[in-house]
Amino acid sequence: MPGNPEKEKRALNTGEREENRYWSGMIKGIKPYIPGEQPKDQKYIKLNTNENPYPPSPRVLEAIKRAADGSLRLYPDPECSSLRETIARHFGLKKEQVFVGNGSDELLAFAFAAFFTGKAPILFPEITYSFFPVYCKFFGIDYEPVPLGKDFSVAVEKFCRPNGGVALPNPNAPTGICLKASQVEEIAARNPESVVLIDEAYIDFGGESVVSLVDSYPNLLVVQTFSKSRSLAGLRLGMAMGREGLIEGLRRVKDSFNSYTVDRIALAAGEEAIKDREYFEETRRKIIETRCRVRNELISMGFEVTDSMANFLFMSHPAVPADFLYRELKSKGVLVRYFDRPKIENHLRVTIGTDEEMDCFLRALREVMACCPQGGS
Amino acid sequence: MPGNPEKEKRALNTGEREENRYWSGMIKGIKPYIPGEQPKDQKYIKLNTNENPYPPSPRVLEAIKRAADGSLRLYPDPECSSLRETIARHFGLKKEQVFVGNGSDELLAFAFAAFFTGKAPILFPEITYSFFPVYCKFFGIDYEPVPLGKDFSVAVEKFCRPNGGVALPNPNAPTGICLKASQVEEIAARNPESVVLIDEAYIDFGGESVVSLVDSYPNLLVVQTFSKSRSLAGLRLGMAMGREGLIEGLRRVKDSFNSYTVDRIALAAGEEAIKDREYFEETRRKIIETRCRVRNELISMGFEVTDSMANFLFMSHPAVPADFLYRELKSKGVLVRYFDRPKIENHLRVTIGTDEEMDCFLRALREVMACCPQGGS
Repeated sequence: MPGNPEKEKRALNTGEREENRYWSGMIKGIKPYIPGEQPKDQKYIKLNTNENPYPPSPRVLEAIKRAADGSLRLYPDPECSSLRETIARHFGLKKEQVFVGNGSDELLAFAFAAFFTGKAPILFPEITYSFFPVYCKFFGIDYEPVPLGKDFSVAVEKFCRPNGGVALPNPNAPTGICLKASQVEEIAARNPESVVLIDEAYIDFGGESVVSLVDSYPNLLVVQTFSKSRSLAGLRLGMAMGREGLIEGLRRVKDSFNSYTVDRIALAAGEEAIKDREYFEETRRKIIETRCRVRNELISMGFEVTDSMANFLFMSHPAVPADFLYRELKSKGVLVRYFDRPKIENHLRVTIGTDEEMDCFLRALREVMACCPQGGS
Repeated sequence: MPGNPEKEKRALNTGEREENRYWSGMIKGIKPYIPGEQPKDQKYIKLNTNENPYPPSPRVLEAIKRAADGSLRLYPDPECSSLRETIARHFGLKKEQVFVGNGSDELLAFAFAAFFTGKAPILFPEITYSFFPVYCKFFGIDYEPVPLGKDFSVAVEKFCRPNGGVALPNPNAPTGICLKASQVEEIAARNPESVVLIDEAYIDFGGESVVSLVDSYPNLLVVQTFSKSRSLAGLRLGMAMGREGLIEGLRRVKDSFNSYTVDRIALAAGEEAIKDREYFEETRRKIIETRCRVRNELISMGFEVTDSMANFLFMSHPAVPADFLYRELKSKGVLVRYFDRPKIENHLRVTIGTDEEMDCFLRALREVMACCPQGGS
């Protein structure tokens, strides 16, 4: 039984694949989130995807090797009990207040489905994690972008009007600007009718977490990741903390989708990543110190740099266009992130690497600026 | 700013958590898929979740240990190129015709979203993988269960009427009954207007795959898993094969949901699992042989046993109720799967373990039957 060659030829002629007509309306109009470049062609200093420059804790790597045994033939614990207990102990919560998933992106998607669908428009900053509008499109959620200050500041007041939910990265991305815990608390307190979802992907680099408040606010859900401060972007592991009913809401979405989202290796590695506090403290301290130093140097070179509390800097120059800097840096082997988007099209986001990597970045940047008539300070 | 203690007290009094009111309509009515028991309290012979009794290939375990290094700080390749190329080579396809995900459940969910939403009711067997109706509920997809024969046989004819899509595990679960490739091909050929999704989770235990037909049928999408015949249930890895446009459809859903679903460890392990053909052939052959032997023994004991092409048997006894057998076997330390569902409430699904495990199962079953007045043959 052959296919229909006539139809196929037509499809090829129009440059459209025949099978694309099977796409549901849901996916036809999708503009997917575009992750940062992962180049394979050249050895770059990679400061474009906010990865941690330090390897995971040696205890994590040992745990993975130990978990690589015959038990991989068995499904993982669908409840992820042991890891959830370890996380709960770390934060002073109960296991029932903790959820884990295949990266914090998956947890954010679950939260959007569990708490934001079929409601009034949700609020999130006009400049924020670019996955938020993608989730909204996917789950059919309306949203209203909340304007930021000219300096990208987040005004608490603007999140305190009728809404179907609030989603807020703190620190915000890609600006790095961080609200105080008391400000996030105010947003939670003034939105008793909707879930306030705080994405704390970058909180360990200088911000104040609100995880300790989840007991007090039934509408507060906090998501964190193992990808940044715990150097495990390659492993896909995230955690969510909130009241039991919110966690149960996430579980219902997960169980409608994939019974086992976290594998045995990630469960074992995650526990050691949480338990090795010393390594965690040491590496995040180094990143914060490097960030402070590089920020000062950039300011002295004439750049405007937000007061980032994340593992990246968000910078622009009053005279030199960001896309030019992006290309020139790339040609010198330094990859940073450029967003071709309104209001931030003149900014670069630069991940904090090791001191050596940041010195290379600064050297390359100085060379670019020196060749550039507008670059002199 | 404390929570509202009045409200909280009320919530506790009614036995309902205050925060449950934040649940979206989408999750309120959800009846999640219930995976098989994963008991921790006792050492069971575990024949209830269709895991492979043999460990993964030693080459897989070595690959995991090698991948446990500092590069885990970096995101995985979002395109999963190397693994997809390896799979494509294995099946004689192009990389663009292969997709990988965090277990085949995730791929099935993506396929339901990509090809079945907003369409006419889809068709799947009335007795089948119990996740199918869960996906439908989650994504708002209508479905019509297709009746099976009294012997659980699947009639091709019944899948050839107007529909918004067809989903069919082959072999079917939990019956193990398998259509021939030519029959699946007929279903694909007679449904040119809709996607025919074939879940080949168990195909390697004696069935004929239709992967080789995906080039010929633009509507044919085949999903397989590493959990069963490649002994990697603990790692969460699945693959989907189809025309490029169908694969692009899955990618659009994935990129609306989670940019990186497959971690670095799973990517490395998956490649070796595909490459070690010898180990794969040897372990699946052993399972098929054990299944044949145990099936014959069960028939000689008076059981009715379907002609399963999977790594499990589906059995009932004309005189002894299945729930009784389930409980008695459990009390003797042998865990099998019992489904309290219409039309199969008198059946047990028994995973094929090692020969030693199956001998224990048969011994326990003989003991139960001997104590049971209806059990004599």
